[in-house]
Amino acid sequence: MIFTEGELAYLASQRLGRLATAQPNGTLQANPVGFEYNAERQTIDIGGRDMGNSQKYRNVRANGRVAFVVDDIVTTQPWQVRFLEIRGYAEAIDEPDRPSRFGGPIIRIHPRRIISWGVDPDHPGFSKRSVRPSDR
Amino acid sequence: MIFTEGELAYLASQRLGRLATAQPNGTLQANPVGFEYNAERQTIDIGGRDMGNSQKYRNVRANGRVAFVVDDIVTTQPWQVRFLEIRGYAEAIDEPDRPSRFGGPIIRIHPRRIISWGVDPDHPGFSKRSVRPSDR
Repeated sequence: MIFTEGELAYLASQRLGRLATAQPNGTLQANPVGFEYNAERQTIDIGGRDMGNSQKYRNVRANGRVAFVVDDIVTTQPWQVRFLEIRGYAEAIDEPDRPSRFGGPIIRIHPRRIISWGVDPDHPGFSKRSVRPSDR
Repeated sequence: MIFTEGELAYLASQRLGRLATAQPNGTLQANPVGFEYNAERQTIDIGGRDMGNSQKYRNVRANGRVAFVVDDIVTTQPWQVRFLEIRGYAEAIDEPDRPSRFGGPIIRIHPRRIISWGVDPDHPGFSKRSVRPSDR
């Protein structure tokens, strides 16, 4: 398994993530996106209105490197944020092989590195690790 | 002015933003960050615990390209997200010229492009524009 149970529970608890992509000229983008965990493939699938025509979709098609983060504020006093960041490679998929809740094209993230803070009760504090396709 | 009043009000209403940076090897990062608008310089100043030792800080020092986004969910039925995204160049500043609420080193973003959806009551819907230092 790529993700721990605690990480999956955290992903399921959040509605919005943010996707970082790079344009061909090197300009970076950061976009709020809806997402779902694809348990069969152990990927993060991202969709949304007019995804196929979006710049982030074209960025992924040209250059699959992405980062994706889900986070929230635990308390403001003291200031405490928890997050799960996923770095890896993504595909721009015009016609997904299974229906997603988004319909239409999706961006599918294959994790290579997972960094988190405070999201997994079984692993408190900071955590980072590399993952490989063979970990699935 | 680089930002509209509506955009500044939106920035002031949100506590957390997400910063996209690129490592020297091309790996992208997406990190939740605390931020403040610097009215004097019309920049976004980002700080946080141990900023000076963070990978994002080193990324900015090596390659100033960044994207930064602030967003929130307006309604889930129907699904509606509003956001303000800022693309531009950033500096890694060890000793800021004025005290910030963060203390210590900061990342200072100089906006070059501003993209938003639904954050400015005076400009409903989608908005994007380029900004230049001379716009200040």
